[in-house]
Amino acid sequence: MVDHAAGSATRPSKRSVALSGAPAGNTAICSVGQSGDNLRYRGYDILDLAREATFEEVAWLLLRGELPDNATLAAYRERLAGLTALPGTLCKILEHLPATSHPMDVLRTGISALGQFEPESEDRNAKGALAIADRLIACSGPMLLYWHQTAVTGRRVETGPEAASIAGRFLRRLHDAPVDALDRRALDRSLILYAEHEFNASTFTARVIAGTGSDMFSAVTGAIGALRGPRHGGANEAALTVLQRYGDPEQAARDIAERLSRREIVMGFGHPVYIVEDPRNRIIKEIARELAERKGNSMPFRIAGAIETVMKERRSLFPNLDWYSAPAYFLLGIPRSLFTPLFAMARMAGWCAHIMEQRDDGRIIRPGANYIGPGPRPFLPLDQR
Amino acid sequence: MVDHAAGSATRPSKRSVALSGAPAGNTAICSVGQSGDNLRYRGYDILDLAREATFEEVAWLLLRGELPDNATLAAYRERLAGLTALPGTLCKILEHLPATSHPMDVLRTGISALGQFEPESEDRNAKGALAIADRLIACSGPMLLYWHQTAVTGRRVETGPEAASIAGRFLRRLHDAPVDALDRRALDRSLILYAEHEFNASTFTARVIAGTGSDMFSAVTGAIGALRGPRHGGANEAALTVLQRYGDPEQAARDIAERLSRREIVMGFGHPVYIVEDPRNRIIKEIARELAERKGNSMPFRIAGAIETVMKERRSLFPNLDWYSAPAYFLLGIPRSLFTPLFAMARMAGWCAHIMEQRDDGRIIRPGANYIGPGPRPFLPLDQR
Repeated sequence: MVDHAAGSATRPSKRSVALSGAPAGNTAICSVGQSGDNLRYRGYDILDLAREATFEEVAWLLLRGELPDNATLAAYRERLAGLTALPGTLCKILEHLPATSHPMDVLRTGISALGQFEPESEDRNAKGALAIADRLIACSGPMLLYWHQTAVTGRRVETGPEAASIAGRFLRRLHDAPVDALDRRALDRSLILYAEHEFNASTFTARVIAGTGSDMFSAVTGAIGALRGPRHGGANEAALTVLQRYGDPEQAARDIAERLSRREIVMGFGHPVYIVEDPRNRIIKEIARELAERKGNSMPFRIAGAIETVMKERRSLFPNLDWYSAPAYFLLGIPRSLFTPLFAMARMAGWCAHIMEQRDDGRIIRPGANYIGPGPRPFLPLDQR
Repeated sequence: MVDHAAGSATRPSKRSVALSGAPAGNTAICSVGQSGDNLRYRGYDILDLAREATFEEVAWLLLRGELPDNATLAAYRERLAGLTALPGTLCKILEHLPATSHPMDVLRTGISALGQFEPESEDRNAKGALAIADRLIACSGPMLLYWHQTAVTGRRVETGPEAASIAGRFLRRLHDAPVDALDRRALDRSLILYAEHEFNASTFTARVIAGTGSDMFSAVTGAIGALRGPRHGGANEAALTVLQRYGDPEQAARDIAERLSRREIVMGFGHPVYIVEDPRNRIIKEIARELAERKGNSMPFRIAGAIETVMKERRSLFPNLDWYSAPAYFLLGIPRSLFTPLFAMARMAGWCAHIMEQRDDGRIIRPGANYIGPGPRPFLPLDQR
């Protein structure tokens, strides 16, 4: 069942976005914003996936095209759990990285180095690419936390019996304590929301790199660098900074209104693709509300809500996925600097699916440019300048 | 003097290239292929620059917009020579990277790590960006050779009085011997040819990353990953592999003709943008011919020429810059695995100029996609699959 009708041609272009609406290729992985507010991974509605599936099911779906059955999923979970250990020399490199580093930079350097210890085969076969995708999904969390605990907290967690999921392992290692099942599920659902989003800037980066015939590690390293930017994945960290500025919702509403009249930009609102709303917002807001109630700390959620109202009234802007991710991750006890890396861990699944799709496409991505520089000028030798 | 008339709209699109001819932004850095075969850096013809300027002049031109005068150039050379030393901990990291690594991966990991030791300021100011550009241009060669000599050859060169140019320092450190002035000039000219080429895949990667507000190191790390691909910078290494297959021009011509009838692709021919010829080929062919004569080893050059003839007669394809770079670098005694890294060292100037230009543009780069996947499908719970 292939739906060729609803292409991106229906999507309006935005002036703040270069190549907006210009199709850079075909994809069967994800459709986004076709009616202004919907998102589907391989045909499945994001709302169904985030409510009923787990991140591992979604990673399998994105990479292999279909949802796994029970036995396949169990085997996949086991396989991922077996792919978490890092080469010893890579651990030494991670130990040399400065404690002041942004964790996204640690991930960028760490994944780049992993590609030297476990290089992709030169023939770039699909089986090897899938194995690397699984490896990256499984080991990026442990890689981050290994560095975080040796360089930053100074407390290295010797991992005993491992949790059965990416989300569970992350919280287990981060807090060095048994994980509450509802906390694990909250993080798991947020990873589903972050897993894939068509030709966003980081995924597009990965596809441009893959188009030259380069390896998976090069493409993912580039994508991490793109996601790091405050206009992309970095927005969830920026959102928490905004929330933490205020003591209560009233103060937040008043100050944001003033900032808007000074034409300041508030991160976490609006979107290059959606025009009505970000469908993922509904789910992440549910998650943040549930965490606020369960943890008995509703203030960040209420402040986020007050700012949402002001942004809607004054600017007609809706919150995107990053906005309520900030209070949700905060309530899960996750340090702010690990917010964007969690986005990266989840998007690893989407990036790898797109890299493989770009390889099948077989084209190099090479746009043109409008030249606006000086016209032809004669060369002047050094001593005549 | 701004020439708005000759935009990329006149450039024909190619089917093997995604977004071919679609303008992804404005640039004042470079115009390419406007009459099918010309190339200008900020209005200056590539033939004049490669014959009369030095790489340092061209780097200054690309990054600052004008050719430097004598005093400015002298100060810039001195400044670059002072920016070659690496942080001690970064050297330790380089020592941990496997000897089996491709040097492009070493550069990718090394530049990524450098961004952690010397991070860009969060405000991304232009002065800081220029300082990082100079740092990257100055230290990428020494970084490569530090790893090459500790991990691969086991012979660490303690650098004494330094050569006054990027090309001179590279050859001095590589061979650990005084550098012939003509050899230095040959490498210097090739770096000018490789320094910039508009929205090619690696530069475009850097611009997509920069568009999210990310840092210079992230953008350059991504660009290195893109350049590594055999359809992009990797082609100069592939070209030498082809040349070294043959004992003489006749054998080469015969075998290539046979391969072409089997529809094999020969790297180093054709171009995503040029349709008549690659203007840089004229210069790099001059350089390779001169080296062949001076070194008394004409075979690689003659084999390259024989294959050029076959490609022209059978496929109407012209050699691109990578084709004669291969015999030229070979005759300079440069190991094959350092060919693409040399391309990267030179292109660092172009990448950094484009990153700064993209920041001034202020837009995020986010194209659309044609969805060709499954239409909406209902979610099936795990136990019903």
